[in-house]
Amino acid sequence: MQPRPLPVPVPIPADVFEAEDRVRPFAIETPLLRSDALDAAAGASVWIKPECLQVTGSFKIRGASNRLSKLSETERARGVVAYSSGNHAQGVARAARQLGMLATIVMPSDAPLVKVEGVRSDGADIVFYDRWHESREDIAADICDQTGATLVPSYDDADIIAGQGTAGLEFARQMQAAGEPLHHLVCCVGGGGLISGIALAFSALSPDTRIWGSEPEHHDDWARSLESGAIVANSKEAPSSICDAILTPQPGDVTWAVGGSRLAGGFRVSDADVASAMRFAFRHLKLVVEPGGAAALAALLHRMPESSRGQRLGIVLTGGNVDPALFARLIAPSGPDQGPG
Amino acid sequence: MQPRPLPVPVPIPADVFEAEDRVRPFAIETPLLRSDALDAAAGASVWIKPECLQVTGSFKIRGASNRLSKLSETERARGVVAYSSGNHAQGVARAARQLGMLATIVMPSDAPLVKVEGVRSDGADIVFYDRWHESREDIAADICDQTGATLVPSYDDADIIAGQGTAGLEFARQMQAAGEPLHHLVCCVGGGGLISGIALAFSALSPDTRIWGSEPEHHDDWARSLESGAIVANSKEAPSSICDAILTPQPGDVTWAVGGSRLAGGFRVSDADVASAMRFAFRHLKLVVEPGGAAALAALLHRMPESSRGQRLGIVLTGGNVDPALFARLIAPSGPDQGPG
Repeated sequence: MQPRPLPVPVPIPADVFEAEDRVRPFAIETPLLRSDALDAAAGASVWIKPECLQVTGSFKIRGASNRLSKLSETERARGVVAYSSGNHAQGVARAARQLGMLATIVMPSDAPLVKVEGVRSDGADIVFYDRWHESREDIAADICDQTGATLVPSYDDADIIAGQGTAGLEFARQMQAAGEPLHHLVCCVGGGGLISGIALAFSALSPDTRIWGSEPEHHDDWARSLESGAIVANSKEAPSSICDAILTPQPGDVTWAVGGSRLAGGFRVSDADVASAMRFAFRHLKLVVEPGGAAALAALLHRMPESSRGQRLGIVLTGGNVDPALFARLIAPSGPDQGPG
Repeated sequence: MQPRPLPVPVPIPADVFEAEDRVRPFAIETPLLRSDALDAAAGASVWIKPECLQVTGSFKIRGASNRLSKLSETERARGVVAYSSGNHAQGVARAARQLGMLATIVMPSDAPLVKVEGVRSDGADIVFYDRWHESREDIAADICDQTGATLVPSYDDADIIAGQGTAGLEFARQMQAAGEPLHHLVCCVGGGGLISGIALAFSALSPDTRIWGSEPEHHDDWARSLESGAIVANSKEAPSSICDAILTPQPGDVTWAVGGSRLAGGFRVSDADVASAMRFAFRHLKLVVEPGGAAALAALLHRMPESSRGQRLGIVLTGGNVDPALFARLIAPSGPDQGPG
């Protein structure tokens, strides 16, 4: 039985390849990194794609620049609106600035300050909302109604997915250059824009690699959806998580249409797993990774099955936008000492 | 008038090229990174060589692996000894382990714990000493006398310099691939092993690039030596600095023989400059850089002359081995908050 087609476009691998030329003026090709310490900890050969080193500190510039580059002249003149806890916001703000467009970002009033500052430094207007009592969707829709601006979704959109997928094209090609494909790739999942884009890219370039999600426990909508074969939402009473960037209610319609059939499954990680992964990245990788961006590393360090030992594993570290006070607390739990100086 | 030749070998550019094959099994080619935020802050186009991402968390594996690979079978069987505040120690320990040799490291009892753990995890023996009342040179010499082990100097040695210089070969070639040579390169300086190796490499591949040191204020022996044309030592009463990795009494004889005629000059940076640079790297580059490793970035952010504006500048971030409590204190001076989680 064929599933009912979606009323909106669902991207195919060719869309990811076509996105590359549009994304290139905005994003860097992030390197692949190795770490003896990580190989030893994982009991496997691990390749790391550090999108925390990407422009704006996360992969989100890829999707935003692809989406905004496709707007018509008329649409560009009216500007764009996005809502986001921060990384998508920064991607949209940067792409808009580079294209000479106005951007308005609807952000929760408790968004990490580092993300607010990133958006502000790219000249976007910020509208704060109370995420317990206001609807960001309604606020953004009002702005679009009033100004004619285009809403840029953070994940559930063919162009966003295709843009994020350029990270997957790079990863697969870098592994081709390294000589051997990955057995497994683990990527954090919020709405699923990145992982479904990566799944498209790997379906074309490295079809035998199995793609796995990693989510905060209690926010395991993708894992449960993949297990049940249909979209399942998180409980509205789910306890919060430090992974602010990847807390979404359920898989998107478009991301599910792409990822639902292409992902192998999902891991659940605790806040303690994530904090441990951030400390590992600090200690051994010398990378600053934000909580949501460390979910794949957390899965690798704490949740991988024995069967992955000795295999070639890839992880994406998706972002590094974390407030210094939280980072300090997580890497040095007992608080700073009175060291030299 | 020709200067009197040194009684020990002084490396030439060919030695750096020859070191590459020996270093390759031990070290990675670190990528070159760019940052819009850094370009904006410096008013220049900046390329970053992040040796903090190198194996053992600093460039020191390059020189250590070159030096140890050249030992004879007989020498290898007797092991090696090194003294170091930590990064050279880790480089020697790792190279020794990979070559199946015994290593004994003489470390100050107040060395950063992260460096002690790094050495220990590579299976080296550690001998601690009190750096106010004991001589690490005497302790190391005693061990060599008793065991027949080879002392591996941390900088003042032709093979160490040539090995560190492989970072310069990479940097110069990566800039060739980027299309244009650097006008200026800034690198932190302790004993001068890395910067003199880089100067050798650039003299062969990018001779018009001017190479500058960066040192903690009061430990500006290289800057003053370059200004006066002869080796000048630091005052023994110089106040300390957070840059533990680059506090050395004076330029080495061999490093000075290489660098004295090839370096353009030196910058002095304060602990506050260095802390600011570490915060910048955390916030914008998403890299963990240790104090000494951030000295070049500190010079770029706080000490560059107006004449460098608009030019192509290179910096080396030489290491990332910093204790979490100190890092936490430097990036979040008011102490960790009681954030989410």
